[in-house]
Amino acid sequence: MGNLISGPVATSMEPPIIEELDSSASRPYERPHPQETFHQTVIDTDSFYGKIRTVYSERVLKTQLDQLRKQGSYEAFKLGWHPKYDVQKLQGGKCTIYSPPTLFWDSDVGKWIEAACYFLSSPDGKRSPHTAEFISAIDELIAMMAKAQQSDGYLGTYFTVVDKAGKLKNLRDMHEMYNCGHLLEAALAHHRWSGDRKFLNLMLKYIDLLMKTFGPGKNQLHGYPGHPELELAVLRLYSETRDPRHYAFGHYLVAARGKRETSLGGKPFFVWEAEQRKDTFFHASMASIDDGRYHQWHAPLHEQDTILGHSVRALYLVTAASDLDGKLLDDAKRLWSDCVDNKMYPTGGIGSIPDIEGFSEIPHFLPNGHDEGGCYAETCASIACMMVCERLLSHELSGNARDVMERCLLNNVLGGASLDGKQFYYVNRLATCGDENADRSDWFEVCCCPPNLTRTMGLLGGYMWSAKTKGKTISLNVYLYMSGKRIVELPSGEKAAAEMQSEMPWQGRTTLKLQAPEGYDWSVRIPEPEYAEDFKLSPSDLSPQNHVGGYRSLALPAQSTVSITFDMPVRLLAPHPATHQDTLAIARGPIVYTAESYDNTRLEEAHRHFEGLGLLETTTFVEVPMQIGNIPMIGLISQQNVYEKTISGKKEIGSMTVVGGGKKRWGELEEKLRLVPFFARSNRDKGGRLRTMFPRVAVSDVE
Amino acid sequence: MGNLISGPVATSMEPPIIEELDSSASRPYERPHPQETFHQTVIDTDSFYGKIRTVYSERVLKTQLDQLRKQGSYEAFKLGWHPKYDVQKLQGGKCTIYSPPTLFWDSDVGKWIEAACYFLSSPDGKRSPHTAEFISAIDELIAMMAKAQQSDGYLGTYFTVVDKAGKLKNLRDMHEMYNCGHLLEAALAHHRWSGDRKFLNLMLKYIDLLMKTFGPGKNQLHGYPGHPELELAVLRLYSETRDPRHYAFGHYLVAARGKRETSLGGKPFFVWEAEQRKDTFFHASMASIDDGRYHQWHAPLHEQDTILGHSVRALYLVTAASDLDGKLLDDAKRLWSDCVDNKMYPTGGIGSIPDIEGFSEIPHFLPNGHDEGGCYAETCASIACMMVCERLLSHELSGNARDVMERCLLNNVLGGASLDGKQFYYVNRLATCGDENADRSDWFEVCCCPPNLTRTMGLLGGYMWSAKTKGKTISLNVYLYMSGKRIVELPSGEKAAAEMQSEMPWQGRTTLKLQAPEGYDWSVRIPEPEYAEDFKLSPSDLSPQNHVGGYRSLALPAQSTVSITFDMPVRLLAPHPATHQDTLAIARGPIVYTAESYDNTRLEEAHRHFEGLGLLETTTFVEVPMQIGNIPMIGLISQQNVYEKTISGKKEIGSMTVVGGGKKRWGELEEKLRLVPFFARSNRDKGGRLRTMFPRVAVSDVE
Repeated sequence: MGNLISGPVATSMEPPIIEELDSSASRPYERPHPQETFHQTVIDTDSFYGKIRTVYSERVLKTQLDQLRKQGSYEAFKLGWHPKYDVQKLQGGKCTIYSPPTLFWDSDVGKWIEAACYFLSSPDGKRSPHTAEFISAIDELIAMMAKAQQSDGYLGTYFTVVDKAGKLKNLRDMHEMYNCGHLLEAALAHHRWSGDRKFLNLMLKYIDLLMKTFGPGKNQLHGYPGHPELELAVLRLYSETRDPRHYAFGHYLVAARGKRETSLGGKPFFVWEAEQRKDTFFHASMASIDDGRYHQWHAPLHEQDTILGHSVRALYLVTAASDLDGKLLDDAKRLWSDCVDNKMYPTGGIGSIPDIEGFSEIPHFLPNGHDEGGCYAETCASIACMMVCERLLSHELSGNARDVMERCLLNNVLGGASLDGKQFYYVNRLATCGDENADRSDWFEVCCCPPNLTRTMGLLGGYMWSAKTKGKTISLNVYLYMSGKRIVELPSGEKAAAEMQSEMPWQGRTTLKLQAPEGYDWSVRIPEPEYAEDFKLSPSDLSPQNHVGGYRSLALPAQSTVSITFDMPVRLLAPHPATHQDTLAIARGPIVYTAESYDNTRLEEAHRHFEGLGLLETTTFVEVPMQIGNIPMIGLISQQNVYEKTISGKKEIGSMTVVGGGKKRWGELEEKLRLVPFFARSNRDKGGRLRTMFPRVAVSDVE
Repeated sequence: MGNLISGPVATSMEPPIIEELDSSASRPYERPHPQETFHQTVIDTDSFYGKIRTVYSERVLKTQLDQLRKQGSYEAFKLGWHPKYDVQKLQGGKCTIYSPPTLFWDSDVGKWIEAACYFLSSPDGKRSPHTAEFISAIDELIAMMAKAQQSDGYLGTYFTVVDKAGKLKNLRDMHEMYNCGHLLEAALAHHRWSGDRKFLNLMLKYIDLLMKTFGPGKNQLHGYPGHPELELAVLRLYSETRDPRHYAFGHYLVAARGKRETSLGGKPFFVWEAEQRKDTFFHASMASIDDGRYHQWHAPLHEQDTILGHSVRALYLVTAASDLDGKLLDDAKRLWSDCVDNKMYPTGGIGSIPDIEGFSEIPHFLPNGHDEGGCYAETCASIACMMVCERLLSHELSGNARDVMERCLLNNVLGGASLDGKQFYYVNRLATCGDENADRSDWFEVCCCPPNLTRTMGLLGGYMWSAKTKGKTISLNVYLYMSGKRIVELPSGEKAAAEMQSEMPWQGRTTLKLQAPEGYDWSVRIPEPEYAEDFKLSPSDLSPQNHVGGYRSLALPAQSTVSITFDMPVRLLAPHPATHQDTLAIARGPIVYTAESYDNTRLEEAHRHFEGLGLLETTTFVEVPMQIGNIPMIGLISQQNVYEKTISGKKEIGSMTVVGGGKKRWGELEEKLRLVPFFARSNRDKGGRLRTMFPRVAVSDVE
């Protein structure tokens, strides 16, 4: 404690409350983030993941740039008037219904720039036919921002153009800190890619303004973001600058959240802030102006025992907490565990309550679609969960966190874009119903998900593994089985390399080639996923006391080759009983499967949305190699027939049936069920319908 | 058409649009309402229903009067300031959050007066120890109202005391017409009981004001009630006055609802009305200011194909429609059928979405409790359903409508008050969860349910049967098997009598004694409920071509005795497959059963809220005579054991389990399940927990 100050300290600012900061806690820069490491890994473009990335670098980035131009956000930093601002002008600039979509435009631009910089950093990204256009757009946008920045450092379109007086007066609703955080992450990405400090310097100036204005000091506003994002971005900045003020600010933003401030009459900040505005409006997802659950300020993080509210806000907050000191890291683990154990779909989808785009209050409320009472599973929430997993893994290897990260990536996240790179999902329901279909959309008024997807795919090399050198031992922790090569820069200036070839996510065959200069050795941790059967490792791993749950440990010489094989038989998964669902999900390895009408035309025509169809729990499946777009994958066909629910028995009011008399409940159809990977749904037709989990047919229930 | 005008026509009012009125449709007064007929039936006080009514006449009415005094509503018509008005004063009288509870005070007073008048009309009610106090209160309240009435006829506390300028300017939210309707029903009841016209004349003056102000005419406001109630009340008034303006007004109020008015620029009335107020606020249950589903103005009734929104509003509207002409009657039938077939619990509970106190958009969304995604089942909604059933039966006998009415009455409605008459339910969940218990409440801020219950119980004789004489034939349609005697006034001035003794709802043994003067005969319709087995009628009924579905028809001489017997074996009911619930409800006759912790202490201690417990669908039950309070009833004990869900198998992320390998899902416990009638729940202890529907255990799923 106390020896952290280095570099300039602004004399006009209250000193950070350093006594709260635990110097024994690992600092973020000691656990390099994918944003800092991704460029060291080249992903094999012919591999599964490589092919997916190509869709992003060659198609998605361009689609998104076009949409930004079309939507108006691209031009927003020119500070002209856009007709979409009119609705707020009529409302006197007040947020009276909902956060208007134009509020987020700054972040949309930021996330696009960030993603573009990631792809421009990679060999495969550099080959994009749109490279010149992207570079030109980045330069143009940064130039706009430089001109748009106010003299005090403030950078934000809405409060520069529409509501000048309202600047930084409604942190709860107006997303200024959210936008700042994304612009900051973009600036860091830009700096790393280009070496240029132009954008970064802009953001440093804005951050200085925010650090001066907000904090625990007597003359500061005790505010924090309504939508968490700035906290984690500032910690990414800290990893770059090593400026303790940046760490302290990130810590403050997380630790202050939800406090009932004595200096504010015992009120939480947002309630006090609304009073200053004489504003009685509260967000539609809040029960009252004091209701902090939606934005996770109902209590300080230490006192939150269950994850609540808007899922992306919650998980961005947890991401930041997982990069801070011991107690906040514990809070992060507790809330993340509640999320993944009690409030997550098998597809890695998170958030079952559409009205609040977030969590049910109670555990195990996981309706698969609108007719079951909800299902949201926002793409951004699964990405956020990956971010938490990665930070937790950076502290401590865990098979559980790894499996969750992979499950999110290969199902809910990967499915977020069509395989032609042109359309996207915001909501990822497990089943359609009524008049719904499973189509993706060209774009969204609130378009946070597509650019979030793109930057995640841009960072993919950083999610693959982490490497750290201590003395002469290179530690390599593998997160994802992928095909790629990583250069490890050694302190001596020499380089080592790890190269993995893997047939995952379709087959367990993997080879890992390690090369280091003489005198070095490797300490490698290899995942043994929960779904892997007959797991074989060559050379054999260390004795079990060196194992981490879900991981095998190997101590290897400078030049080594490791072979891994494992099987992934199809398995049927039952949800927790408290979901009140007696259903089955079908998985093979990390891939969860879904049935779409495209492959099951006759069956689904007779049973719209596959409603009323069930599977025996003894159902087995045949694997079918297939391809959608240019992505090869494995499909499944059931070897047994599907069953349909029969309602036999005397009917009563309320559409109920008298049971008994030995009448059977399920009748066998002459139909098999054809399944595709959930991420690959809705790529081959429009207007399709789907179902992911099917009622379980008990053996005694069939004719 | 056109010959309906009789009595005075206000020259300052636009003529009613009589051309829209179908003169061939039966008028409400041709189908006398329970409010008009109840007093002709004396219910046997020693019978089940009689004992229940005694709780109301001797306890509930008094409890409610005390609560009205305590709450402030009793004094409200003195027009003094009440502290509870302060919150609205601060808001400038505007409805900014929700309809403040004080808005409904007028209706609470009205419903209490109405109920008191019903009980004071009956022999059993007259015996109440509080009779003098009730009569005194009625007189006092009427005197207050006489003084409180404005010179133009307006009668309403809120807009006389709190917001004078806002009178009749926000029909959508401010419940003025709702209050008026209930006061009108009270005035009719008062007149019938006392012969006095004082109260009725007050209300006639108010109705005149409303008929002048609102209507289809060029100089009229095209408004209708935000909360339906006035429509059906005005039709009750019409039955009394036979004044065609009253019928036309009721018809207008229903038919105008949801129209996009050309004279209002194509807007629906409430949108136009809000613009006049320069008011952008809309109710929390609406998606936008144009969203009419909550209040059923999203389209004219003819175009509404599914029942939506707030369930009491919807069903009061349907009640009124069922008393109007052919097309509106068809609309009523369509929406009522959607309600009872697709959106009703086996307990007769209606409304699964707590946030809107109403219907799911989709059919068969019937979560049993909070952890399943909802369940509201407001007491008032089941009462409203009974009201619709009765009106439908008044048009045409139907076993279905009768069964529904009885199911609502004997389960969700009857359970609305504790058997000691002191506490009430607003919400009637089928299962508790989390920190909930099944306790009733002393009162509610919005206390519509208790007085609604009381007036329904006061009217019970009118729900029992209906009688009509044509020539020398007395038609008697039995609705409910009860013990009571009805006098039928014949056109000649003579009297006939029907006396029923029934052991229902516990046993099917019923005797019906009919006595008419010489020369008369009876045409009797006896229910054959859907749950009745081995139904025997003596004398035998007419040949089947005279049958109505669910009814047996008898032609009988002036002096006759009919004997009915039927069995009611316990039956297990499965919900519709589209509910996604594989559960069982337990019923015996019209009574649905529930398990409470009081009778199942050991079992429920180990499985809180009976969570995770299931029943074989072959479970049989032993009947156990019991008594709660002074009400004898039949309880049930399962003859087979209860099962608990076992989670065996490899666990995976997201709390899922890999299935297969022949592991069984249910383990047998050494415990039977004890059940009580749903209406009788929560009478013997505080803090209890309950469950009504249990997962079905398939035979192949047990060890």
